[in-house]
Amino acid sequence: MTERRTYSYLGPAGTFTEAALAQVPEARGQVWNPVHNVGEALADVLEGRSDAAMIAIENSIEGGVSTTLDALATLPGLRIAGEYLVAVNFVLVGRPGIRLEDVQVVAAHPVAYAQCHGWLGEHLPRHAHVPAASNVASALGVLDGSLPAQAAIAAPGVVQHQDVEVLAEQIGDNDNAVTRFVLVTPTTVPPAPTGADKTSLIIELPVDQPGALLEMLEQFSTRGINLSAIQSRPIGDELGRYRFVIDADGHIHDERMYDALLGIRRFSPRVVFLGSYPRADRRIVQYPERYADDIFVEARDWIRGLLSGEPEA
Amino acid sequence: MTERRTYSYLGPAGTFTEAALAQVPEARGQVWNPVHNVGEALADVLEGRSDAAMIAIENSIEGGVSTTLDALATLPGLRIAGEYLVAVNFVLVGRPGIRLEDVQVVAAHPVAYAQCHGWLGEHLPRHAHVPAASNVASALGVLDGSLPAQAAIAAPGVVQHQDVEVLAEQIGDNDNAVTRFVLVTPTTVPPAPTGADKTSLIIELPVDQPGALLEMLEQFSTRGINLSAIQSRPIGDELGRYRFVIDADGHIHDERMYDALLGIRRFSPRVVFLGSYPRADRRIVQYPERYADDIFVEARDWIRGLLSGEPEA
Amino acid sequence: MTERRTYSYLGPAGTFTEAALAQVPEARGQVWNPVHNVGEALADVLEGRSDAAMIAIENSIEGGVSTTLDALATLPGLRIAGEYLVAVNFVLVGRPGIRLEDVQVVAAHPVAYAQCHGWLGEHLPRHAHVPAASNVASALGVLDGSLPAQAAIAAPGVVQHQDVEVLAEQIGDNDNAVTRFVLVTPTTVPPAPTGADKTSLIIELPVDQPGALLEMLEQFSTRGINLSAIQSRPIGDELGRYRFVIDADGHIHDERMYDALLGIRRFSPRVVFLGSYPRADRRIVQYPERYADDIFVEARDWIRGLLSGEPEA
Amino acid sequence: MTERRTYSYLGPAGTFTEAALAQVPEARGQVWNPVHNVGEALADVLEGRSDAAMIAIENSIEGGVSTTLDALATLPGLRIAGEYLVAVNFVLVGRPGIRLEDVQVVAAHPVAYAQCHGWLGEHLPRHAHVPAASNVASALGVLDGSLPAQAAIAAPGVVQHQDVEVLAEQIGDNDNAVTRFVLVTPTTVPPAPTGADKTSLIIELPVDQPGALLEMLEQFSTRGINLSAIQSRPIGDELGRYRFVIDADGHIHDERMYDALLGIRRFSPRVVFLGSYPRADRRIVQYPERYADDIFVEARDWIRGLLSGEPEA
Repeated sequence: MTERRTYSYLGPAGTFTEAALAQVPEARGQVWNPVHNVGEALADVLEGRSDAAMIAIENSIEGGVSTTLDALATLPGLRIAGEYLVAVNFVLVGRPGIRLEDVQVVAAHPVAYAQCHGWLGEHLPRHAHVPAASNVASALGVLDGSLPAQAAIAAPGVVQHQDVEVLAEQIGDNDNAVTRFVLVTPTTVPPAPTGADKTSLIIELPVDQPGALLEMLEQFSTRGINLSAIQSRPIGDELGRYRFVIDADGHIHDERMYDALLGIRRFSPRVVFLGSYPRADRRIVQYPERYADDIFVEARDWIRGLLSGEPEA
Repeated sequence: MTERRTYSYLGPAGTFTEAALAQVPEARGQVWNPVHNVGEALADVLEGRSDAAMIAIENSIEGGVSTTLDALATLPGLRIAGEYLVAVNFVLVGRPGIRLEDVQVVAAHPVAYAQCHGWLGEHLPRHAHVPAASNVASALGVLDGSLPAQAAIAAPGVVQHQDVEVLAEQIGDNDNAVTRFVLVTPTTVPPAPTGADKTSLIIELPVDQPGALLEMLEQFSTRGINLSAIQSRPIGDELGRYRFVIDADGHIHDERMYDALLGIRRFSPRVVFLGSYPRADRRIVQYPERYADDIFVEARDWIRGLLSGEPEA
Repeated sequence: MTERRTYSYLGPAGTFTEAALAQVPEARGQVWNPVHNVGEALADVLEGRSDAAMIAIENSIEGGVSTTLDALATLPGLRIAGEYLVAVNFVLVGRPGIRLEDVQVVAAHPVAYAQCHGWLGEHLPRHAHVPAASNVASALGVLDGSLPAQAAIAAPGVVQHQDVEVLAEQIGDNDNAVTRFVLVTPTTVPPAPTGADKTSLIIELPVDQPGALLEMLEQFSTRGINLSAIQSRPIGDELGRYRFVIDADGHIHDERMYDALLGIRRFSPRVVFLGSYPRADRRIVQYPERYADDIFVEARDWIRGLLSGEPEA
Repeated sequence: MTERRTYSYLGPAGTFTEAALAQVPEARGQVWNPVHNVGEALADVLEGRSDAAMIAIENSIEGGVSTTLDALATLPGLRIAGEYLVAVNFVLVGRPGIRLEDVQVVAAHPVAYAQCHGWLGEHLPRHAHVPAASNVASALGVLDGSLPAQAAIAAPGVVQHQDVEVLAEQIGDNDNAVTRFVLVTPTTVPPAPTGADKTSLIIELPVDQPGALLEMLEQFSTRGINLSAIQSRPIGDELGRYRFVIDADGHIHDERMYDALLGIRRFSPRVVFLGSYPRADRRIVQYPERYADDIFVEARDWIRGLLSGEPEA
């Protein structure tokens, strides 16, 4: 009998994170372990209680998830194994029988609350807000009375797990809102390239070096590598000091990426390699022909010839 | 009799924002209007209810304040008139008579909670967390019983306004934590340069242009302008689209900054000029001599001579 | 009666320079003054003896004409008014009656000699070389016996002026060889743009500044300006110090060129503006739309609005 | 008995090239083979008649020696083994008994003639010029009457080999004029680094790629490598197409140079590696600490660790 694998995720059942985990074929039929926050999920992985953790890393409206980015920047021993996109929308729910006109206080996770600002201003202009810990905890708090609110902003998945009245659907301000999740495992050998990969890095800039960000970006641009995401995060020791969380098109096994990583490592006082893994959209990476693998191989052959002292052909 | 000016700030009395406003000499003896959030403060200014608003813009640990940055990016008609730094630390408070060993639940604004993670893990390892709306609301909720907690993480200023028992001081994980606030007014003529100024901008990158961020940074580096802060924010329409919030050393009246702004405007589909204003630290801006004002003036004289057709001296 | 204009050129009749001058419509029916070298031609212009001088500036095989480039770099008061291309090929000529097999010594200007190396190696493998002062002086010296040679390499035009025997035609090694000439006048107002213009500059690099050449080139690339020619010349005071002679696509009246010239002037210890003038090939200058004139005008309007303190539209 | 080595150089005895060869310790007591031009010297090496050839490559006043640069660009199988500087000055000589006031015609190599322009204008304002093939041939022609001149501009060394009357010394216009020579051998293994080395390259730019020169220079600047010389030469097929002859500080065995060479090779359609060899001035190469060898080694170790899947230390 095979042992089952364990996946940690931000629970409870019904969260967007659970929806992300549902996209992982290997996770079907395995143990799903709901946790309370990102730190707990990553600790499960680092301490061996879970084989992997699904965590939110970036939201198209709210931006990078600070807790995730800062945890990945500071906890060694982790690798991203894959990314998953979940379209984000919200429902307004309450206890069975309640009507919209009865709602005076709305419970909501602050990020979700911010994304429903337009709808609330139009339909509940006089409401007050009570913060909740997750997009499911908001509904649970309303149901059990532990939160002083008549309605909750929740993930649509909540209706499958709780007996709630849906007061309104699609209340998010942006129909295209999407959250990007990553599946995190202990450090391991990078998976084989698929041609549609991305490489995630966290790069600290050298201090007292004007133009350091410019120089960091050049490490990629001079090898024909496109960046699909770049986010700044404060290092935390003083104002004006940043690390950058970067997604670069390509795989560490691509010659141009390998070379760029060497350049980045020489440049930066601290680099965290989060992994090379298949893109969620499976889009094949495009790059100028001059940065193809064989160009790199040919250049190495050439320089070996120079060092050997043999005349060029 | 002179009419008094009105300043909006995130209240109630005792917040870090109030401490920032207390640094503004012109605000003494004027009307201080506590509001509930950044949006309300900026609306006061835009709609003429206040002359200025003090809002938090960046925290050395948590990073840019998303709400502030996104509001400044999208609301036209505002200018930053000055910046103010407030050292951030926290106290743990409770109702009079309570002792630390009685605390099972802690009320705290999520940002403050994150910054006290180390202390709490050591002194209250088994506590639970209840979120509060501000660093004063946490204490108020504990005092009046509206939050189900025995203690609150609060700004030190709370002790001057509320009858609380201080259970612990300096519980923040980083002794150097500081928050940067800006005083925002309606659009106006930039103040005269002081030699120790910064210029704040929000710059949207052109789409589908690899290397766009690189090119944006070059607009500054090729004019000898240092950036003291750069933060990415999602534009919000799709993943991977960013605007950048930038603080550049110098004043729009400096020739090199004026020239860089022209370059940025030509490059970017959308630029918001937030203002040129004195730095909080009053440090004189350093720059290579070759980017001094007179070099720019001399070059303009030279090209005028070329166009006139007169032989060069 | 209109006074006739005078044009100096490297003579005598029959040189490639004369062929270039024949391309100038305004020069027809005017005074053509043959001179012995570039210095004499430019002195004629500077001292008022000629209205303009036609001089060779670049050869597709031999490269920049050092004497011309160095003279333009050091003599103030000159402007290029136009450029002209002459296809360069050579004939081997001798006194009437001579045969190829009788030739033991060949008279030739050193540049011409170098360009016929292949043909001579094949047809006259045992010849010796006697240097001559021009591509016509070589033939004259053979005709009058002042040069100890039986044949001369000459410009094809020589047959129209001298009674020579043509021993071989098209003896140049490269069929596409072309020489670029410029018509030089005293400093004057730049002519109106034609849309197919180039701007010529001589730019000295700042000393002791690594990356100075890189930075100079960026002044053009960051404004979407293509360089059609770039040549290094030693400044002459010590090894490793260079000035660069540059042809840039566009006209000083183009906003992007005007802006680039300002940038170059601020950067360089010494810039010589040689002129904006129509390209010989009349090819319309292409540039990215984002560097169009109206983008520059709009940016200036924008910054004027910022300084006025009026809210943005 | 050891076989003697043969060195080709531009003769005859008394030229500046001979003075350069005299600086080579290994050449003492060996066979010195005077030749007529650079092409002959390099052919001697390529065809095995000589072990090495001394050739002029750059003059501080006249610039790159075109023949040398073009020969090195097109002839495979050569390496530069060392460089040598010779201070360049000139004497005016004539047949014994002649006086300065008798001189009406001056024989001179064109390059030497150009460098004595100032002195001649002052002391022999009415002279005529007859070109000679070398700085010794000028004197020989005057002595034996084969050149129609009363005096010759010659290298100072001529007085040791010919019975001439020195009419004037130090007649060059620039007291600091210096010519750089290189000793060229067949392709061989690069010599061991000395810490004071330079690397010479000839690099062809890709066509139809705006900013190609900029990108080429970045290959060096992004590795902290300074260029001590850069010269453009036309490729020769059409106007506006250039190759660049470059001297870069450092040795192919330096990690940063090795890496830059790889980058250059990937970028350029054609690179000629002329060699890494000790600088004439023996000045130790300076570079930013961040481009030291061990930084490169450490980065390679790091990336190997990433690929192995082992957690970082």
